[in-house]
Amino acid sequence: MSSRVDGVRPIRRGKVWLVGAGPGDPELLTVRAHRLLVSASVIAYDELVPAGVLALASPDAELIPVGRRARGCRHHEARIHPLVVERALEGKDVVRLKGGDPFVFGRGGEEAEELAAARVPFEVVPGISAALGAAAAAALPLTHRECAASVTLVTAHAASDAGEGDRDLLATIPREGTLVFYMGLGRLEETCAALVAGGRSPQTPAAVVSKATLPDSRLVVGTLETVAALAREAALEAPALLVVGEVVARRVESPAIADEAVARLAR
Amino acid sequence: MSSRVDGVRPIRRGKVWLVGAGPGDPELLTVRAHRLLVSASVIAYDELVPAGVLALASPDAELIPVGRRARGCRHHEARIHPLVVERALEGKDVVRLKGGDPFVFGRGGEEAEELAAARVPFEVVPGISAALGAAAAAALPLTHRECAASVTLVTAHAASDAGEGDRDLLATIPREGTLVFYMGLGRLEETCAALVAGGRSPQTPAAVVSKATLPDSRLVVGTLETVAALAREAALEAPALLVVGEVVARRVESPAIADEAVARLAR
Repeated sequence: MSSRVDGVRPIRRGKVWLVGAGPGDPELLTVRAHRLLVSASVIAYDELVPAGVLALASPDAELIPVGRRARGCRHHEARIHPLVVERALEGKDVVRLKGGDPFVFGRGGEEAEELAAARVPFEVVPGISAALGAAAAAALPLTHRECAASVTLVTAHAASDAGEGDRDLLATIPREGTLVFYMGLGRLEETCAALVAGGRSPQTPAAVVSKATLPDSRLVVGTLETVAALAREAALEAPALLVVGEVVARRVESPAIADEAVARLAR
Repeated sequence: MSSRVDGVRPIRRGKVWLVGAGPGDPELLTVRAHRLLVSASVIAYDELVPAGVLALASPDAELIPVGRRARGCRHHEARIHPLVVERALEGKDVVRLKGGDPFVFGRGGEEAEELAAARVPFEVVPGISAALGAAAAAALPLTHRECAASVTLVTAHAASDAGEGDRDLLATIPREGTLVFYMGLGRLEETCAALVAGGRSPQTPAAVVSKATLPDSRLVVGTLETVAALAREAALEAPALLVVGEVVARRVESPAIADEAVARLAR
């Protein structure tokens, strides 16, 4: 880290881009994320990053998998991957790719704190969070002037603590409005039951969206009383979202279109 | 609309793409939205769509401004612009461009309902909602494992009804977690006061982000007690977001980077 006197200049540090990879479909990357991804020489990625997105990386790029398990621990145990900081201190720019949006359950805040502590410059590029991707794909509005003036995104974290889970869960949700749970399918029954116990009607419309925006996406629609069993019967796979609220009943199916006209603009 | 017997085939209807234009920076369009936009022959756009985004349209495209005032009325008075349906019935594909995300306070659900009623096929393309864009630009996480297990997006609608406003407002927000208000600056004092009256501490960190992701974006940080006055003194301009919660205190500034290294990857 020393410089010769005749060549003194600041040691250049690389920059880390905390980039949202969106919900699955590579077309739902932002233009900026797409450009960063295809040109990056170092990419550190979560296991939640869809394969189709990662496929856009240059064949010459160094790919650093960041196990989700390592990040899934509670509190301070989880840390940014040491190689991310190491590469930046070597002067390389790094794309730190995260599923969805880095600041919506992506632990982007925690990683930004660690980068700042290591004096590594960073920038955040937002992504389409899973709730927005799922809503668009299922034609299921998240807000609606007649029935939902708010939408609350809740992490599996709040919904999955044994024992204190229900109390924590209810503190994070409002009396009215749309709820979207980013969750494991294993907690579906308990989450629906907790919402009913907390005062939402068992007849509240509810949907589970599995693998939203991917080709094998599936949707199950029911109520708080029925949707967990329906999802289990349908053997839905993770990742999945639970959407709760009157908006679920406002889902609109697009009328059919003559085959030859489909996606004329899209490609 | 009639067909000669020797040439019977379904009248081709155009498709309407309800497309999120993102928060402002054209680089935050999705790849899909970008492609649709540059190739569209008919584009109907809200006044909230940033100029830089609209500039991507083909010079040959028919541009249809959809006044926000016409959409701002309550309940059923607001309708999709008649020209959107007309062009689709003529067989043209139409990009219906909306600021942010079509299903987060974008009235996308209502427009989808009307398109379905008119038997016009549609598809929804999500966008980076203003809250996500502002959070990334300000390095302000919306959730944080230590202090925010949920984020609630609340529309100006809930916060702006005279008289019943506060009661409606409080029903749409949870006891804990991050809140983001999509709002006019005119209601800032009342909104902060209502939150304090509803039980949030006056010392809760709060920020106002004006014109997030645009070059003239500005940020004011304070508490529920101070932020409205600070925003007024700073003469912030619309559009603006109010962000409330402990995450505001977790904002991380990026360390400086040597000039020559800035944005090497970005362009």
